[in-house]
Amino acid sequence: MRVELITVGNELTAGEVVDTNAAFMAAALSEIGLEVVFITTTGDSPLYIEEALRQAGERADAIVVSGGLGPTEDDITAKTAARAFGLPLVLQQGVLEDLKRVFAERRMEMPASNEKQALFPQGAEIIPNPQGTACGFVIRRRGKIFVFLPGVPRELISLVNEKVIPLLQLERKETFTVRSRTLKVFGYTESAIADLLKGIKPEDFSATLAYLPRFPENHVKITLRGKTPAEVEGNLGRLERIIRDRLRGRVTAADGETLEGIVGRLLRENGATLAVAESCTGGLVAHRLTQVPGSSDYFERSIVVYSNAAKIQMLGVPEALISSQGAVSGQVAESLAQRVRQVSGTTLGLGITGIAGPSGGSEEKPVGTVFIALASPKGTASKRYQLPGDRNQVQTLSAYIAIDWVRRYFFNLLPGLNQ
Amino acid sequence: MRVELITVGNELTAGEVVDTNAAFMAAALSEIGLEVVFITTTGDSPLYIEEALRQAGERADAIVVSGGLGPTEDDITAKTAARAFGLPLVLQQGVLEDLKRVFAERRMEMPASNEKQALFPQGAEIIPNPQGTACGFVIRRRGKIFVFLPGVPRELISLVNEKVIPLLQLERKETFTVRSRTLKVFGYTESAIADLLKGIKPEDFSATLAYLPRFPENHVKITLRGKTPAEVEGNLGRLERIIRDRLRGRVTAADGETLEGIVGRLLRENGATLAVAESCTGGLVAHRLTQVPGSSDYFERSIVVYSNAAKIQMLGVPEALISSQGAVSGQVAESLAQRVRQVSGTTLGLGITGIAGPSGGSEEKPVGTVFIALASPKGTASKRYQLPGDRNQVQTLSAYIAIDWVRRYFFNLLPGLNQ
Repeated sequence: MRVELITVGNELTAGEVVDTNAAFMAAALSEIGLEVVFITTTGDSPLYIEEALRQAGERADAIVVSGGLGPTEDDITAKTAARAFGLPLVLQQGVLEDLKRVFAERRMEMPASNEKQALFPQGAEIIPNPQGTACGFVIRRRGKIFVFLPGVPRELISLVNEKVIPLLQLERKETFTVRSRTLKVFGYTESAIADLLKGIKPEDFSATLAYLPRFPENHVKITLRGKTPAEVEGNLGRLERIIRDRLRGRVTAADGETLEGIVGRLLRENGATLAVAESCTGGLVAHRLTQVPGSSDYFERSIVVYSNAAKIQMLGVPEALISSQGAVSGQVAESLAQRVRQVSGTTLGLGITGIAGPSGGSEEKPVGTVFIALASPKGTASKRYQLPGDRNQVQTLSAYIAIDWVRRYFFNLLPGLNQ
Repeated sequence: MRVELITVGNELTAGEVVDTNAAFMAAALSEIGLEVVFITTTGDSPLYIEEALRQAGERADAIVVSGGLGPTEDDITAKTAARAFGLPLVLQQGVLEDLKRVFAERRMEMPASNEKQALFPQGAEIIPNPQGTACGFVIRRRGKIFVFLPGVPRELISLVNEKVIPLLQLERKETFTVRSRTLKVFGYTESAIADLLKGIKPEDFSATLAYLPRFPENHVKITLRGKTPAEVEGNLGRLERIIRDRLRGRVTAADGETLEGIVGRLLRENGATLAVAESCTGGLVAHRLTQVPGSSDYFERSIVVYSNAAKIQMLGVPEALISSQGAVSGQVAESLAQRVRQVSGTTLGLGITGIAGPSGGSEEKPVGTVFIALASPKGTASKRYQLPGDRNQVQTLSAYIAIDWVRRYFFNLLPGLNQ
């Protein structure tokens, strides 16, 4: 069953509001295996709304419209729908009584403007809205079903979940299961991933693959369809194993998991603690780690040693080392990692130093030059990276690489320490 | 000039991503007075993309398409556009050379899949993309202009601002000036702002006001139209002064400015430096401050004293103080601020301690209890806050309040130090 969504509102075409309603409806309908073919957004204009309805009726089997059912002058969706379908607007006494009761319960006189919310195209099936004064309604035309909903997100969400999903599941012909999993990949570009996965035939697993760049990660979304949940789960298991093998330990997390969450779990499971000495990331490593509830169990401290004085004074990095090698060097990164681990008495110490830019770059150490170091019971390793992008990207990538080093340490994937 | 936006991507029709690109483009184009009549979203399907292009060509004068220019097989917008316009796809040698150079600079071999990003419909005007591998392009047909852009938000935003806006301003017929300014307010709710601005008549300035919640800020967007830039600037100046007066120093920044940028400028202009000791914000204060290029001129260090041991050992906060008052107390916040200022030898010291949750709350110090302290040449002040929301919101609000204290310090708005 092909679905088109229509969202109505001047605030949407003016870009004052991000259209979360469309995303919510698209996700909810995709979840049950319906194909959303188009999402059309237009303003509170009779002409445009009519055009959108006409066109959607030509190319979709089910059309879900949201917005424009409010009490104010500019809410014209019901009136416009009536005209688009050549139906008269009729007063639904029952709805009017309900509206009056709602206001009575609030000890309020119902404003005259709310009466229009009891007017619907003749023959429309009313969708009661327990949370608000704007009822939805359904119109059927030439085998197509048009569902109209209020635009208030809270009301829309519960009407979609409680009314629209069951309604459309009755309408649809096919019956099959849909399942999806998102693998979060770090360390390969979207195109590198595509190359690594070349030759895999998702269709053999009744699956499709989608690539979603989510800087600094790249996500691979597997969506499978099948007759039974068992069949789908089996295919997912097999396909996911193949993909994970091809991506060589670069899948950092899946679905709702985050890298920080995984690293936190690994530290806790191993009874390990972590301290950080960060320069160019300016606190971002600590910030990401401490976004995880309960991170105080394993995250001990971070020293944001932005100045050389701080590096020397707080961590006792040898001044000679900084002057001979430069603050941005593998030796200083290793010293930061070792010293912060030592003073904090933690299992692991991370050291990050680099040039985030835009200034501060040189011939042999251009902007984007970053050194990451990890001090551990197995010794200390460091590596030089040349990172692309602006200041913000360099900081984000540096922090992500540093945190991923802890994950890779526990999975024995860290060259120099584990291999 | 009527504009239609087309956003392309299965992740949009599947509801995996909220379409912020459409909202951004709609806002940017509305700001210069263009009317966005439709926003059409469809998946990475040749049929649907072609249909969207055909239809948009019939009802709009300018069509801006985003998405589907990536290197992977599911990125088919360029190929589909070529077919829709009956043009052959041709390889742009110059673009290919640029792509190869980009990868070479990253010390990487260009994946084969990136080559397709050098293929464009014959005769298309290329829009170079300094930030990524997906160039945009322009096709003109029967007096209509079609602009194709990559879907990566960061890249899209700068191409729209730097290329598309100037391009469309050349194209358009109408000659009136539109000007807008966004005032970023922190410390008042949306409805509190509305109350404070009650009675102001934007229409007297040929202006409109829009309220845009942008957690943790609330933005007031002023949009003015007029015959001449001079007229518009005059009205903007008068209206903005009135609004700023009503909001009593709670406007932290305007338009492209950020609070961190303003604070950085104030520190630099006053030849002042800053050090931070943060607990519950876990590095977020340092991260926000160091996102600003050149912040090393005034930001000296941050100590993320997540553990009590760190507070005592790194900053010499008296152990007795922590045990008597608790780590989350005004006295400890002040001690953190004073000690970090002292050891760093900076002009100012910020101290933050609190309970971000979800656990760690108590009867008299529930989750959301946060103490902020600022140590300065004028002495030390601290304040207790009870912040709403989840862990992430509490951390965000705490960091924002702390940084805003520095702004208010320099504007003599800080109770306890300035009044």
